[in-house]
Amino acid sequence: MSGGREREEDTNLALKFDSAGLMPAMAIDQRDGTPLMLAYMNREAFDKTLETGEAHFYSRSRKELWHKGATSGNVLLVREVLIDCDQDAVVLRVEMTGDKAACHTGRTSCFYRAVTMGTDGPRLQFIEHPMAFSSGSSLGD
Amino acid sequence: MSGGREREEDTNLALKFDSAGLMPAMAIDQRDGTPLMLAYMNREAFDKTLETGEAHFYSRSRKELWHKGATSGNVLLVREVLIDCDQDAVVLRVEMTGDKAACHTGRTSCFYRAVTMGTDGPRLQFIEHPMAFSSGSSLGD
Repeated sequence: MSGGREREEDTNLALKFDSAGLMPAMAIDQRDGTPLMLAYMNREAFDKTLETGEAHFYSRSRKELWHKGATSGNVLLVREVLIDCDQDAVVLRVEMTGDKAACHTGRTSCFYRAVTMGTDGPRLQFIEHPMAFSSGSSLGD
Repeated sequence: MSGGREREEDTNLALKFDSAGLMPAMAIDQRDGTPLMLAYMNREAFDKTLETGEAHFYSRSRKELWHKGATSGNVLLVREVLIDCDQDAVVLRVEMTGDKAACHTGRTSCFYRAVTMGTDGPRLQFIEHPMAFSSGSSLGD
């Protein structure tokens, strides 16, 4: 498999990782599609996710395989793995466990702020997201 | 603004682009959260999106600003822009126009295949997505 059209219309898995060996992976809530978090996968994280049924990523800051929830208990159970047309992006439809917080800040979702136009340009506004726990410090997980 | 926690808990926009000046942006259907496409934004694309209310990305292949739908008519009207905790990823809640095809293959969504386990490892399986138009060739848009 080589060309774009084959990659788009085929059932062969031919993932295209970037020059750092990564691709973006968006986790969404399987119930209602709520976007939860965006992280990166290398091939190992992708394979581990399929093998275990739990979301694994590659931590770019720690430079290591990252089993989401291994520390916090907030494992993401993967119900479906979607791949995009050119096979360089992943969507995980997940079921949340534990505190049901995908974000290390304690929020359900990392996407808890929306852009609004202020008088001096764009600003952020907090939007409603249930706070699963109150984090005094970053759990990094 | 500098530190992680300020970036996470503040209402100041302090986007973190990567070393190539890009960040991933996921467009989802505002009606039901269906993931439509994942592309990249540079600062110009982000600003143009806010200014026009229509999704703009940066085309890594063409190395230029990309007004999604400028050629095909399938403009994505942006209803909400969400930013994640560390401000290095964007979610666009969009309303589809034209053929309502976010994917250049003619499909509603770029995420039209799911990973399944075959006898010799993971494979892709086409999942249901309305085909807005039948593409003989890639529209690149």
